[in-house]
Amino acid sequence: MTSADKHIGVFDSGVGGLTVLKEIHSLLPYESTIYLGDTARVPYGIRSSETVTKYSYENSSFLLKKDIKLLVIACNTASAISLSLIKDLCSIPVIGVIEPGAKSSITHTRNKKIGITGTETTIKSGAYRIAIHNIDSEIEIFEQACPLFVPLVEEGWLEEEVTHLIAQKYLNSMRNSNIDTLVLGCTHYPLLKNVIRNVVGEGITLIDSAVEIAIAVKNILENSGILNNISSKPIRKYYVTDSPDRFINLGAIFLTEPINDIELIEVTSLEAGCR
Amino acid sequence: MTSADKHIGVFDSGVGGLTVLKEIHSLLPYESTIYLGDTARVPYGIRSSETVTKYSYENSSFLLKKDIKLLVIACNTASAISLSLIKDLCSIPVIGVIEPGAKSSITHTRNKKIGITGTETTIKSGAYRIAIHNIDSEIEIFEQACPLFVPLVEEGWLEEEVTHLIAQKYLNSMRNSNIDTLVLGCTHYPLLKNVIRNVVGEGITLIDSAVEIAIAVKNILENSGILNNISSKPIRKYYVTDSPDRFINLGAIFLTEPINDIELIEVTSLEAGCR
Repeated sequence: MTSADKHIGVFDSGVGGLTVLKEIHSLLPYESTIYLGDTARVPYGIRSSETVTKYSYENSSFLLKKDIKLLVIACNTASAISLSLIKDLCSIPVIGVIEPGAKSSITHTRNKKIGITGTETTIKSGAYRIAIHNIDSEIEIFEQACPLFVPLVEEGWLEEEVTHLIAQKYLNSMRNSNIDTLVLGCTHYPLLKNVIRNVVGEGITLIDSAVEIAIAVKNILENSGILNNISSKPIRKYYVTDSPDRFINLGAIFLTEPINDIELIEVTSLEAGCR
Repeated sequence: MTSADKHIGVFDSGVGGLTVLKEIHSLLPYESTIYLGDTARVPYGIRSSETVTKYSYENSSFLLKKDIKLLVIACNTASAISLSLIKDLCSIPVIGVIEPGAKSSITHTRNKKIGITGTETTIKSGAYRIAIHNIDSEIEIFEQACPLFVPLVEEGWLEEEVTHLIAQKYLNSMRNSNIDTLVLGCTHYPLLKNVIRNVVGEGITLIDSAVEIAIAVKNILENSGILNNISSKPIRKYYVTDSPDRFINLGAIFLTEPINDIELIEVTSLEAGCR
């Protein structure tokens, strides 16, 4: 197989990364993709950085063995904690979700006040703050973990009154801080865009990394001369570590296309692959 | 060590089982206990029965190697899915949380209409319904999964307006079904007792299995002649599979006593112990 024919590998803790995969499919329709959802160990956002690093390492090793040409860490928590380690591990390009989101937020802010939302572990890591300050240290950052957003999305309560109230509880201080840009720093959060927009108001730009990541993937593939431009039917392969049923049902909301070619792999085989 | 001197082993997917441990400590103050919280793989309530079975088996094997005298599965999901398998595995008594809760609900109902709440997987398993119907097949059962209750408790929002609204969404149909008894079929739910009571009204008896389990543990130890009556300072040992920080902080809310003697064990060592 030439490099251009190889697959793009994508992993996430569960279904959330499908929002990223969706944008990759949309922008790069001829690329074949392999997606790994670590559904036996989701969610990563409440785990320690040591555990998230271990899980990311195992997921990456699994995908690398599939001879992929590029790896996307489509999970904010895993990107925040383990991107540099995984980059060291790989001879192929690796893209996390933090940097594209951080760069995009800097492009959009006018008043240099940016809000960051994410899971407990992502916010605790300060990964977005660090990435933004590496580019522009004068930007003021306001951070807020929103632990209930993921279970709300997974319950399917995307526009309920309670969702609105919870978003208000989390984001009221953001509104008062006069930010003009808000990073949705978890792949589940774009599904709450309407509610979040409603709470923070029309004047604030919401940054959804998924589109930015797809663009970054395209740029890297083009610059490396391994973009697949051939109009053939691409492969869309899915692996999960827990029974596929829940992933297929919930995943369809995120991906907005059916998930057909899916396979269950044991967590122990992920671990064994790293020993 | 004589049998009476041995520890009681307790496992849960995370901190929830500490509500059970608390009642055991309270009723049996001289008993030493070992608690395993599988915090690297929590929550079990969204996982398939195959995965929950595997995790329960590994946790039980770990505790059995500590030479315990009795095993408590202090997790509703794990009890619902794997109790009979674990009983087959063990030569010591094993207690799950379903049966004591089911029996207690039958004792309390007058109109033979019982409501059951729990995680997705517990409700899907029908474990409470089956346990109740095994004793009295005429009892009418109303089941409701409440997936947001666990993250609400873990966020510490025990009496907030949103918690009340979410409880209303889940439990309104219960109120209309004319039940007189409601089983809190997840170890997190007793922390929402005030809100749940408020929603379902004073007339309904709330069944919190934790107290019943402690009584069941005492009965078994007494009947087997291995109750520890000696007034010495008992050991309270904790193991977790993810970094202890979150467990210690959150656990104190559940246990209402400090968690001192705690040790991190790797998930891989749990698995390896079963190979």
